[in-house]
Amino acid sequence: MRYEELTIEGRNAVLEAFRSGKTIDRLFVQDGCKDGPVQTIVREAKKQDTVIQFVPKERLDQISGDGHHQGVVAYAAAYRYAEVEDMLAAAREKGESPFLFLLDGIEDPHNLGAIIRTANLAGAHGVIIPKRRAVGLTATVAKTSAGALNYTPVAKVTNLGATIDELKKQGLWFVCADMGGEVMYRLNLKGPIGLVIGNEGSGVSRLVKEKCDMTAAIPMKGDIDSLNASVAAGVLAYEIVRQRLQ
Amino acid sequence: MRYEELTIEGRNAVLEAFRSGKTIDRLFVQDGCKDGPVQTIVREAKKQDTVIQFVPKERLDQISGDGHHQGVVAYAAAYRYAEVEDMLAAAREKGESPFLFLLDGIEDPHNLGAIIRTANLAGAHGVIIPKRRAVGLTATVAKTSAGALNYTPVAKVTNLGATIDELKKQGLWFVCADMGGEVMYRLNLKGPIGLVIGNEGSGVSRLVKEKCDMTAAIPMKGDIDSLNASVAAGVLAYEIVRQRLQ
Repeated sequence: MRYEELTIEGRNAVLEAFRSGKTIDRLFVQDGCKDGPVQTIVREAKKQDTVIQFVPKERLDQISGDGHHQGVVAYAAAYRYAEVEDMLAAAREKGESPFLFLLDGIEDPHNLGAIIRTANLAGAHGVIIPKRRAVGLTATVAKTSAGALNYTPVAKVTNLGATIDELKKQGLWFVCADMGGEVMYRLNLKGPIGLVIGNEGSGVSRLVKEKCDMTAAIPMKGDIDSLNASVAAGVLAYEIVRQRLQ
Repeated sequence: MRYEELTIEGRNAVLEAFRSGKTIDRLFVQDGCKDGPVQTIVREAKKQDTVIQFVPKERLDQISGDGHHQGVVAYAAAYRYAEVEDMLAAAREKGESPFLFLLDGIEDPHNLGAIIRTANLAGAHGVIIPKRRAVGLTATVAKTSAGALNYTPVAKVTNLGATIDELKKQGLWFVCADMGGEVMYRLNLKGPIGLVIGNEGSGVSRLVKEKCDMTAAIPMKGDIDSLNASVAAGVLAYEIVRQRLQ
């Protein structure tokens, strides 16, 4: 989760970034900093529903590139986030059943980039990520996506479970990847679908899993536990592609 | 291609590494260094068919961790390499059709690690990589393989084309991944098979492609060129798994 090229620091620069409408993934504020300018920045961040983290000065010095942070550092996203509604509209426009990826806490930017790349090539209409405990659209993600970020919209939501509920009302079915599920070849994955991929270490969270209609297992013949998250996403996405092509 | 934890430097240490039978992926020798001890090391390296690179002192200083290289630096592999014959023996022992991965120049250690992980879980009997122009079994590869390196053998060969010829004599068929090929679902991938995955940027080399019996294309609906190499390997491997399960 490095934002090297997109770290904004210092009070004026950070405030300006918010006011100019830049997408800020995360705001770091020095513990105890409560003067006027900092409060203005915090207010702007809250208005835009940005994640705010209060940290000791030492941590801020570490995050900061040049040490001139004046108590505030912001991580800007490399790309703009889209809205979930736009993805459904894109599917309608193409006359296709919606096909979305939902990532329940992917932390590695290389995985996120590779998954966005896969989503693009598998013909998915978008990728939905949660606001917290997940990597955002950093420069590394943009690079690893090999250009896919220019075509495949990524939306960031506060609560993945609530988004699933919303999308169910629009007719989507949800399948999550989990070893304990039914072998993917035996599931019907042809309709409007949301493919849920879990965190690299802990998999799909319980609350999200409970909302899914199906649990798909990739057959495992080996000695270790699980595939790399972006590989698992690719294998499942292409099972959906295969079924849709039939 | 970082070997941080496995860089061996200095004449005694490097010579000792060769003599103790450690697997050395690459030996760097300072240009013009031709004295006795260095010649002994070069002789040992040649005996073990290690790739030798002659480089200017400045480059060696860069590679070196502490600057005390005395004209020689060696990169040791994090794991021992296996023999191709052992993979075929393992398949025979399990009563399975051989299923091998051949990687034609994978350069990114994260990709190599993820592919070894996939090979393990897809039930492949081994992974074959070329000696040159490819990453070896570095510490990063070992880590990214998530333990798979303890189970799935990796062999390193001088010439991938020659290895394919050898394996054809043993009854294997070869399929390589390439956009120009037949859609993978229409190919018969059930028999003894070698799956060839190309380099991240340039794909499968012409000479290797010409030796392959089939060219498999992953259907692409998107706007960009190609999947991440480890994702493509996963998608193709699981098409083989699906066909074998039928």
